[in-house]
Amino acid sequence: MEIILKAVAEVKNSRHDTSDDFWGDIISEITLMPEIPSMAFEGIMNFSHLEIIYYFNKVDPQKIVYSGHPRGNPKWPVMGIFCQRKKDRPNQLGLCTVELVEQKERSIFVKYLDATAGTPILDIKPVFKEFDLNGKRKQPGWVATLMKDYWK
Amino acid sequence: MEIILKAVAEVKNSRHDTSDDFWGDIISEITLMPEIPSMAFEGIMNFSHLEIIYYFNKVDPQKIVYSGHPRGNPKWPVMGIFCQRKKDRPNQLGLCTVELVEQKERSIFVKYLDATAGTPILDIKPVFKEFDLNGKRKQPGWVATLMKDYWK
Repeated sequence: MEIILKAVAEVKNSRHDTSDDFWGDIISEITLMPEIPSMAFEGIMNFSHLEIIYYFNKVDPQKIVYSGHPRGNPKWPVMGIFCQRKKDRPNQLGLCTVELVEQKERSIFVKYLDATAGTPILDIKPVFKEFDLNGKRKQPGWVATLMKDYWK
Repeated sequence: MEIILKAVAEVKNSRHDTSDDFWGDIISEITLMPEIPSMAFEGIMNFSHLEIIYYFNKVDPQKIVYSGHPRGNPKWPVMGIFCQRKKDRPNQLGLCTVELVEQKERSIFVKYLDATAGTPILDIKPVFKEFDLNGKRKQPGWVATLMKDYWK
């Protein structure tokens, strides 16, 4: 079964390259598509953080993999694609928790979105503390090294 | 532009109704679709928690809204759809952080997935602590009341 989606909003920011690191200083504007009414953002400043689901539209479908070394680094173990967050993945979906800075009419401004200019946004959800992990989680050692410069 | 996705996996569990609460006791089996190779799960037990993006396939497209009272309750303020997590939303995408219990070949078993039997899974991502909020977030008062019985 095919599932057909349409962008609900689009990203404007200063980031055009899809390289891996240095997302910390970028402020992104997320603007509703013309067919989405403004009321979809009503009350959004009640929340400080949002989850953004987006589409990695610059991925070459030929590069989608099911397994491999994270970032192609042979020092790290081979991991399945569902144990990595890389963009070259089935369905090309990205997901990021962002800090909401400001709303201006049909746009919101957010920090810590790791998406480039022109990225189609598929959904925006408020962060509820009732879904928090409260620090409980386990991860392998390579993740901290891989993420070292991500938010710089 | 239309974005065409396909399920990468499917949910099996004992939950068939789409009512709002009481998800805490449900264990879900997530099984890869036949066209996805098993290596997509290689190494997954290195992680304790996963983010699951799924498709609310039981939503009636006529019921999709852009704004309204959360759960239709007039005691709570009218909020835009991007300030709510309800299923009747543009693109019908669900998102949940789950606890990984076990892997058996082409299936993983998870707790705290709020999706019914037969739900198509669109992506699975490992939780990295580098994306954590560490408790920082603001939300309006109605959320705690709305979520009171959610994980019971």
